[in-house]
Amino acid sequence: MADYDIVIRGGTVGSSAGTFEADVGITGDTVVALGRNLGAGKRNIDAKGKLVLPGGVDAHAHIEQLSGMGVMGADNFESATGAAALGGTTTVVCFAAQHKGKSLTKVVEDYHVLAKRGAIIDYAMHMILADPNARVLKEELPALVKSGHSSIKLFMTYEHTKVDDEQLLDTLVAARENRALVCVHAENNGMISWMGRRLVERGYRDPRFHGPHHPRLCETEAIYRLAAFSELIDQPVIVYHVSTAEGAKVIREARGRGVKMFAETCTQYLTLTVDDLVKPGLEGAKWVCSPPLRLQSDQEALWHALEIGDLQFVSSDHAPYRFDATGKLRAGPEPSFKEIANGMPGLELRLPLLFDAMVSKGRYGIEQFVEWTATAPARMYGLSPRKGQITIGSDADICIWDPKRRTTISDAGVHDNTGYTPYAGRTIEGWPVTVLRRGEIIADDGKVKASAGSGAFLPRDPGEAAKPTGRLSPEFDETRNFGAKLY
Amino acid sequence: MADYDIVIRGGTVGSSAGTFEADVGITGDTVVALGRNLGAGKRNIDAKGKLVLPGGVDAHAHIEQLSGMGVMGADNFESATGAAALGGTTTVVCFAAQHKGKSLTKVVEDYHVLAKRGAIIDYAMHMILADPNARVLKEELPALVKSGHSSIKLFMTYEHTKVDDEQLLDTLVAARENRALVCVHAENNGMISWMGRRLVERGYRDPRFHGPHHPRLCETEAIYRLAAFSELIDQPVIVYHVSTAEGAKVIREARGRGVKMFAETCTQYLTLTVDDLVKPGLEGAKWVCSPPLRLQSDQEALWHALEIGDLQFVSSDHAPYRFDATGKLRAGPEPSFKEIANGMPGLELRLPLLFDAMVSKGRYGIEQFVEWTATAPARMYGLSPRKGQITIGSDADICIWDPKRRTTISDAGVHDNTGYTPYAGRTIEGWPVTVLRRGEIIADDGKVKASAGSGAFLPRDPGEAAKPTGRLSPEFDETRNFGAKLY
Amino acid sequence: MADYDIVIRGGTVGSSAGTFEADVGITGDTVVALGRNLGAGKRNIDAKGKLVLPGGVDAHAHIEQLSGMGVMGADNFESATGAAALGGTTTVVCFAAQHKGKSLTKVVEDYHVLAKRGAIIDYAMHMILADPNARVLKEELPALVKSGHSSIKLFMTYEHTKVDDEQLLDTLVAARENRALVCVHAENNGMISWMGRRLVERGYRDPRFHGPHHPRLCETEAIYRLAAFSELIDQPVIVYHVSTAEGAKVIREARGRGVKMFAETCTQYLTLTVDDLVKPGLEGAKWVCSPPLRLQSDQEALWHALEIGDLQFVSSDHAPYRFDATGKLRAGPEPSFKEIANGMPGLELRLPLLFDAMVSKGRYGIEQFVEWTATAPARMYGLSPRKGQITIGSDADICIWDPKRRTTISDAGVHDNTGYTPYAGRTIEGWPVTVLRRGEIIADDGKVKASAGSGAFLPRDPGEAAKPTGRLSPEFDETRNFGAKLY
Amino acid sequence: MADYDIVIRGGTVGSSAGTFEADVGITGDTVVALGRNLGAGKRNIDAKGKLVLPGGVDAHAHIEQLSGMGVMGADNFESATGAAALGGTTTVVCFAAQHKGKSLTKVVEDYHVLAKRGAIIDYAMHMILADPNARVLKEELPALVKSGHSSIKLFMTYEHTKVDDEQLLDTLVAARENRALVCVHAENNGMISWMGRRLVERGYRDPRFHGPHHPRLCETEAIYRLAAFSELIDQPVIVYHVSTAEGAKVIREARGRGVKMFAETCTQYLTLTVDDLVKPGLEGAKWVCSPPLRLQSDQEALWHALEIGDLQFVSSDHAPYRFDATGKLRAGPEPSFKEIANGMPGLELRLPLLFDAMVSKGRYGIEQFVEWTATAPARMYGLSPRKGQITIGSDADICIWDPKRRTTISDAGVHDNTGYTPYAGRTIEGWPVTVLRRGEIIADDGKVKASAGSGAFLPRDPGEAAKPTGRLSPEFDETRNFGAKLY
Repeated sequence: MADYDIVIRGGTVGSSAGTFEADVGITGDTVVALGRNLGAGKRNIDAKGKLVLPGGVDAHAHIEQLSGMGVMGADNFESATGAAALGGTTTVVCFAAQHKGKSLTKVVEDYHVLAKRGAIIDYAMHMILADPNARVLKEELPALVKSGHSSIKLFMTYEHTKVDDEQLLDTLVAARENRALVCVHAENNGMISWMGRRLVERGYRDPRFHGPHHPRLCETEAIYRLAAFSELIDQPVIVYHVSTAEGAKVIREARGRGVKMFAETCTQYLTLTVDDLVKPGLEGAKWVCSPPLRLQSDQEALWHALEIGDLQFVSSDHAPYRFDATGKLRAGPEPSFKEIANGMPGLELRLPLLFDAMVSKGRYGIEQFVEWTATAPARMYGLSPRKGQITIGSDADICIWDPKRRTTISDAGVHDNTGYTPYAGRTIEGWPVTVLRRGEIIADDGKVKASAGSGAFLPRDPGEAAKPTGRLSPEFDETRNFGAKLY
Repeated sequence: MADYDIVIRGGTVGSSAGTFEADVGITGDTVVALGRNLGAGKRNIDAKGKLVLPGGVDAHAHIEQLSGMGVMGADNFESATGAAALGGTTTVVCFAAQHKGKSLTKVVEDYHVLAKRGAIIDYAMHMILADPNARVLKEELPALVKSGHSSIKLFMTYEHTKVDDEQLLDTLVAARENRALVCVHAENNGMISWMGRRLVERGYRDPRFHGPHHPRLCETEAIYRLAAFSELIDQPVIVYHVSTAEGAKVIREARGRGVKMFAETCTQYLTLTVDDLVKPGLEGAKWVCSPPLRLQSDQEALWHALEIGDLQFVSSDHAPYRFDATGKLRAGPEPSFKEIANGMPGLELRLPLLFDAMVSKGRYGIEQFVEWTATAPARMYGLSPRKGQITIGSDADICIWDPKRRTTISDAGVHDNTGYTPYAGRTIEGWPVTVLRRGEIIADDGKVKASAGSGAFLPRDPGEAAKPTGRLSPEFDETRNFGAKLY
Repeated sequence: MADYDIVIRGGTVGSSAGTFEADVGITGDTVVALGRNLGAGKRNIDAKGKLVLPGGVDAHAHIEQLSGMGVMGADNFESATGAAALGGTTTVVCFAAQHKGKSLTKVVEDYHVLAKRGAIIDYAMHMILADPNARVLKEELPALVKSGHSSIKLFMTYEHTKVDDEQLLDTLVAARENRALVCVHAENNGMISWMGRRLVERGYRDPRFHGPHHPRLCETEAIYRLAAFSELIDQPVIVYHVSTAEGAKVIREARGRGVKMFAETCTQYLTLTVDDLVKPGLEGAKWVCSPPLRLQSDQEALWHALEIGDLQFVSSDHAPYRFDATGKLRAGPEPSFKEIANGMPGLELRLPLLFDAMVSKGRYGIEQFVEWTATAPARMYGLSPRKGQITIGSDADICIWDPKRRTTISDAGVHDNTGYTPYAGRTIEGWPVTVLRRGEIIADDGKVKASAGSGAFLPRDPGEAAKPTGRLSPEFDETRNFGAKLY
Repeated sequence: MADYDIVIRGGTVGSSAGTFEADVGITGDTVVALGRNLGAGKRNIDAKGKLVLPGGVDAHAHIEQLSGMGVMGADNFESATGAAALGGTTTVVCFAAQHKGKSLTKVVEDYHVLAKRGAIIDYAMHMILADPNARVLKEELPALVKSGHSSIKLFMTYEHTKVDDEQLLDTLVAARENRALVCVHAENNGMISWMGRRLVERGYRDPRFHGPHHPRLCETEAIYRLAAFSELIDQPVIVYHVSTAEGAKVIREARGRGVKMFAETCTQYLTLTVDDLVKPGLEGAKWVCSPPLRLQSDQEALWHALEIGDLQFVSSDHAPYRFDATGKLRAGPEPSFKEIANGMPGLELRLPLLFDAMVSKGRYGIEQFVEWTATAPARMYGLSPRKGQITIGSDADICIWDPKRRTTISDAGVHDNTGYTPYAGRTIEGWPVTVLRRGEIIADDGKVKASAGSGAFLPRDPGEAAKPTGRLSPEFDETRNFGAKLY
């Protein structure tokens, strides 16, 4: 009689604390044993010479969503999460994106319908608040957080979704009172809008001008401002997609003076540069994302910031727009850079690209790869210990990596609906050949094996990251906090 | 026959470089000689045992002006500049304050009428731009700068006068193109508005809550943001009325990384603290100004910042509102702190208070006193060499100080129209007993001796401070500057 | 038939990534299984309601060693490691302390004899180089590093052990070439010596003057200097026993600019303050250690530095001197503070004190406790994955904690040979009631259960921390590195 | 009858506060009048179209001195100060250089003999303390400071002159007690010595290796350490010859946190770069000075540091060694870089080179030129108001500049005894055509007009710079200062 439903045998198991040789015993959804020579499994998977790593956690992906610029993404949940599964990602935190005037509750319900129908991997949801009015914050937010939507996303830029400083403060206090985390797209809207206007007025229209459109300073400024708000309210925040050395430095300084600020960067800021925007015609549009791609020296700074803990993890910011009139070029055949949809696909290739850059290239160990792509985002967002690590009781979300498999990336070879990949032509080493989600093989040798809708919603308590420092009194009562240095 | 119209004999002349014994020979408006045993004057003034210092230059005073909160100041030009003269100030830079929708040219003309009618000391004008639209910036600004109004003031807060980030950028570029200087009231409007709303909602209404109303962080945030804008455009800026240690630090860091940022603080931030707001009833309203009074430790930090050059000079921010229904209490008998007019008088006592704090108390020398209250503001704002120093060819704006005269300040003893002074009860040492403006005695032994309208307008080229660093190309053409680290 | 030698059943296992419910299966020395309902053990230990945590790794303890001041420690390996075991520490990194003129090889051999005879827990050795001459570095060091002594300790102060700047550079290069880690006691020797001389000359002799004897600045200065050396050579360093907020800040800044600098603090700097030195008579001598105890605000700064990763772990710096003529007072009955032996015991109580301060008081989670006291020091010093975590293949070094047991600390209740504890009188919550080392119970319910000499030497490859950044060429050839910004 | 001995008519007088049109009236040694159309002079000098500027104050020049490396400088007082006069410098602060074991009093007396015999311009003396033992500090220093030698120079490097940390602290306290200023050559001796040894061992001997011989970090480290000592003792210091961007930044940070630290840079660090060392054969030896020449980016950083006040003035560090066996090459025909005498001539060309770089090139105004080359060094070193400005009562030390005269520098065209100039081949604009020292023309149209020995000693009270911050009690009694954050 079998002791386990599945035993993955003979592999090297990786965690953020190191690697070790062990079999992994799975029963039902769950890892129930790790050990040498575990007893029999109903199914036994040979992992000799392979790495057995936690499934990736991608904490930042736009799926089946209308963007802040009003463009519909190319993926639905099935296409997005199928591609994710093929690339080793078994958990995604996507968005329930409110637009102005909408009921947040309704928005969340609507996204649940979409996700439930299509998701192949497990999912949690950040709620995008484009309209954080008193009703939303007082009447809707508490129940939604309680039901497991414990993180809020705000935009400091984009015409249709941005919040102003007072709304940001209102939301931070509401998050504090409900113990939710706040994630922020931090770029100075005025600077972007002003620069875009000037560039177009002067006839600078092609995609390469998306770089100066979002000057480096728009990131540093917004992060600094956000840190000031976070400090005022004593509410932790996570900065999304840090792209510049200076941005990382502002975060470092804020953390140094006690602000509870966390941050991610994304695959593209570690592996692409602004030079990719310089292409004939509109081709560069494929590399238009916000913040824009930056310099080689920024890549170095961002790796260093991850190493010393100023940034904690790496997401994809998957934002898939086809290179046609439904997506990138929806504004007509000759759009200015301002009209090109912002974003690029990333769910599928995040892990393989980072494995190659980090592990195969010898720059970092398995520990950092697992930490930055799975363990840390799970911990930050309240998904631990179910997700992000292979440990007793955790969900059996496991990738079996062939560390030596070489893959040449091509537009034809990727599986989401975007129709192109910004990494076409690269050859990388290392691939997650078999992927399990809650004990079920969902991808194997390049094929999706699970059905749409088999992914499950992950209600979350807020992660450790959401805890205030306690410097201010819990109720944020101004008189109690009078003595604090803030006033 | 006399060699000079006036000779001030036997005094110790002070400059920002030191002191020396010399007679001062004046002919007409002008200092024409400095020397030992100068020849005869038609009039000879004995200054033995006295200090002969340049008349004060107060670069920040609101006169006959409707405030950003919509309250009319208590002073007209005659009362304000008469009081200034009695306190040793012979030059003032006041404001031509545009309100939204108004022609800036008309606004400037109107203020000229008022100033011409009333001014007893010489005056220049900053133009407050509350509505920096394209017409104002393109059609009006160039001529106004050319006619000598070479500095622009912007507010980042106050409902009726604040500009947003794009307007700030528009104005910085316009200033750059016209070689004007930009001065900024830098506080984060959203933070103030949000905090004010919350405090009042919770019933915290009395004047002491003006402190938390403007949290310290609202200053640091806004200065940092301003520095980012200044760096983006390569346009120098002057930060008004720095009140916190952290604000001074942000300026220091900006200067250190090459941002051309200058700054003043004001008498009140060096000599009063937030404890002054804590008074029975509404009495604290007299000490309500913005930014609010801060801590003793901030005073120390601001002195230090002046010493090491992060701040360059000290102004009064004279903003006189009577403690009655015309001013401080115009919102009725029980206003919340939000409704109390912001500001306090300062033109008259700036020099005596600083002389006492700096020179009489032995903390600094005459050099710093002269530098921070006269030479530096004159230099920064393009008034040198006419104003701010006693040198050959400069205007004969001279104060004869009795360094030992002791004065106890009282509400009855001050001369503007405010009706009170926030310094009542202090005894200070040192007083400018005789004051000359362009060779004319305008104040002597506590009496104004010149007539309303005898002050003259001072058209200015922009000061040295207005020069960009040259890091970017002069025309701020985005393509030329593409290589700069800004993008 | 039993599946395992031992099964610890029903406890909550803790790691630096979280906690989970699992049985722990041990065979021989090793953890071979983690799982739900593991099979039978020959011995089964009930851990219901208990925490099952990795044995502590104390990476900084002086055992059976003549100090830099020439005083023999009170403990031999048996007494020190027995006490350690009772407090839950199963691995210690002690010192092989060279004195000037001695063969390092001989020194290491001698310490091995002592350790082999007495050690109850496992041990690795740092080599203290008091005389890093060319012979030691070229002829002795390579073989010693190869045989598993992969870390070097240097003193920047103490008359008999300190190295000068050139010796420090020589040692850093030798460490780089042999891939060893360098740990440093970083205090400015001149400042200490000078201040000590002056204080005694002025008659300030009692123990409380040990504080000013080592001014705060002596730590910041030395850390900054060390960072400069580390940067020059591109050789990682670990700063020992950081005691001040400023020291932590210097480390943060160095890390931020790319210096590969790591750091520990010690139990006493997190739990005691300089006020403990102020006692009648010589009593304060018990709290004399170097660096000296600091302020409450330093404690806060050090916790924060641990949180944000500037410091990575907490050691004891166990340095046991009896409060009598053999130790603290060996210089006679009326020693000045300069003559009091520096150090305090800490091996036994490090874990219980930190558990209480961190976990019982609710300030941090089990994750941080395990990370800072076991996982991180093991990783930093090349003891992973054998030590510092409970994972498959790791040594079965395990503490079973009763998180609720309350203990009042007393001199009589501690077990090393020091004769006193600086924490007498405190009541703490949480205690490691049963302790296993390589699958053997070595302490149980306050009794040592293993024999002297049962501890094993742990040869080490250098940890991840010893890897240079690669900024300079591997061979540190000046011409190759000419282009680097260092010259 | 003449009113004045000399009247300089019709020129543009310059000061650190600006320029003005005025005649300058001189009687005896002294400026007695400034004015329009001054009365008759016995002698009248036409300065129409010319600039009338204060004579330069060079606060750092080695004259007739045995260097720290044991080489005798090429100049005696006559040759050095004659050359200085021709270049517009009328005041020099040279050194009385103690060697180990010597009486400081005797040293000072000896230098007075030399200076009195040869000096053509006025001179003050810094005392170099190579042996600051108790006798020197207690018995000799007080009288020497009282007799006008109010500044002390210390070396942190150079075998024969360097002091260790304790000696540095002893000297800082002695300076504090005697109100003297301390100037420091701040480079880390160990780093230099170590690097020199390694380079030579590896066969890197030619002059270009003088760059890596003194790594950039040796400057930053030493300045940081010096700042720590200055802060500990609350004694101001002046850092000599800052050469790197990082060095300037360390100073900025020290000043920002309240350390009273001042600094100079030298002509060569603003106008030459390390590329000048790369010459065929030994030619590069001419450009060997310490600190070594650095990068173009350092020049920019140093100008910026002067602008924002982190550095206060520019000296020459005149250290003249002939390019022959008496000087640069005294160690034989094939010296390694370590044996090449460190230094270059600079007294004559400091002002013309800086005038050209600053004023003729349009980068700065006359104000900064005067401030950085005359007014500031005079003020810092207690020579104000006699020296460094043209004001009533000041010494009539005046240069009449032809701002348009173009000069091509050549070895043959310079006038000291060095035999070469590091600037040969440059063409510069602006030259001081006539130079007065205390009312006497000492140089005119390229000819020295005054006799050896006509220069006078300038006893000095310490400048403003020597005043402690007062943070600590005046007597530096450790118990009184116990509360300060230092301990």
